[in-house]
Amino acid sequence: MVPKIGIVTVSDRASRGIYEDVSGPNIETVLREYLATECEYERVVIPDEVPEIVASVRRLAGQGCALICTTGGTGPAPRDVTPEAMRQVLEKELPGFGEEMRRASLASGVPTAILSRQTAGIVGKSLVINLPGKPDSIRVCLDAVFPAVPYCIELAGGPTLEGNPARVKVFRPRK
Amino acid sequence: MVPKIGIVTVSDRASRGIYEDVSGPNIETVLREYLATECEYERVVIPDEVPEIVASVRRLAGQGCALICTTGGTGPAPRDVTPEAMRQVLEKELPGFGEEMRRASLASGVPTAILSRQTAGIVGKSLVINLPGKPDSIRVCLDAVFPAVPYCIELAGGPTLEGNPARVKVFRPRK
Amino acid sequence: MVPKIGIVTVSDRASRGIYEDVSGPNIETVLREYLATECEYERVVIPDEVPEIVASVRRLAGQGCALICTTGGTGPAPRDVTPEAMRQVLEKELPGFGEEMRRASLASGVPTAILSRQTAGIVGKSLVINLPGKPDSIRVCLDAVFPAVPYCIELAGGPTLEGNPARVKVFRPRK
Repeated sequence: MVPKIGIVTVSDRASRGIYEDVSGPNIETVLREYLATECEYERVVIPDEVPEIVASVRRLAGQGCALICTTGGTGPAPRDVTPEAMRQVLEKELPGFGEEMRRASLASGVPTAILSRQTAGIVGKSLVINLPGKPDSIRVCLDAVFPAVPYCIELAGGPTLEGNPARVKVFRPRK
Repeated sequence: MVPKIGIVTVSDRASRGIYEDVSGPNIETVLREYLATECEYERVVIPDEVPEIVASVRRLAGQGCALICTTGGTGPAPRDVTPEAMRQVLEKELPGFGEEMRRASLASGVPTAILSRQTAGIVGKSLVINLPGKPDSIRVCLDAVFPAVPYCIELAGGPTLEGNPARVKVFRPRK
Repeated sequence: MVPKIGIVTVSDRASRGIYEDVSGPNIETVLREYLATECEYERVVIPDEVPEIVASVRRLAGQGCALICTTGGTGPAPRDVTPEAMRQVLEKELPGFGEEMRRASLASGVPTAILSRQTAGIVGKSLVINLPGKPDSIRVCLDAVFPAVPYCIELAGGPTLEGNPARVKVFRPRK
């Protein structure tokens, strides 16, 4: 069975067609580069509404996605509600992802990285990760956490994903 | 309109007049140095009681303070309850502030920085930041997060504050 | 009075005798090395069940343990529930411990450190710290936070513990 990956773009404007969703396709491009395992990708674009984010993540988890990446809605603005949806949907929060993505983003020269409330966690057998919207930041954040992603998915009961060693060094601890 | 800034000293002893509040005036001094924008400051001194902290933060947010800094009550001692009040009053918690202030404080040679439960977040259109009590630590913590403060206040719907470039480098990401 | 320290090994398999508990005795060994103060140690081995973790921590806190270390159950796997128990039992969470232990573990060359949900906090007058299971990781994590442990226990109302200066540098801020 081909593993599935879900990508959820959370954006009022992209969901209304005011502008094109660039972040979602960009995340797919980066993941295809980082993963040696061929996966099936499903992308959705939804507005910044807690119930829609919760429903999309639940639906993708229910369909057996190994990994679900969201993009958008993690800042401190009134319409940024992705973390509120995460609080409802995550069964286990993994605070180390948010810490490390903020730290990597700060180290890359973005002092406003501390404003991001991005997090990650487990829903069913799926790992859900909140990513930022900008192409450069997506790479910075994924580089920071990707080495731990395949092992995390295995621990959660998902499929085995192999990294592309030319792009990323996947790590699995010896037992 | 002149932007407002609130400073809340949380201290049983200072509120009873057992000793003078040094932290509150110290925070005002540092903020006046870091901000080029002239602001109006309101300082209050209250005991370590959750309802009083919540009420003070709500009142200052309701009066339109762009920034509210608290000092005191973030440690692990029984009377340290500022984080409990934050949990009640914050509409959006910004964990990156606490992470970065603890890290900066640790890097400055204070291993007990990990005992601080300081955090930050949004109440209405106000950014609320928990600061430590000691003058040296106030600077260390503000230096760590201040570059992101004006942009955060703008995202929350507050006024534009300009930093004093001789003291601090305010950052706003290109859109 | 001799200070008490509790060690809780959380492991389905060790509790059923499928394998021997190595982590618990290992934590005792490291703590005996790091502490100059002679302490009384109590070790328990329990399965990965929230009620049993909560009950063990409460019982050890009720018996006046200055420090309670748990080992195991902090990952993202379905049976990893130590953080869920912590959420029920901790009166004050100290997020700086988890942040710093993950960061030290990452810096030691373990990218999967971000998968750990370990935390720490106060129960009564006891400091509770979640440690990993592997001997090497136990040292890495304790090294990262131990300098702040005796001062934290004092702030929580517990006894004075002295570090062994040959092994660890305990820090107490000047008041």
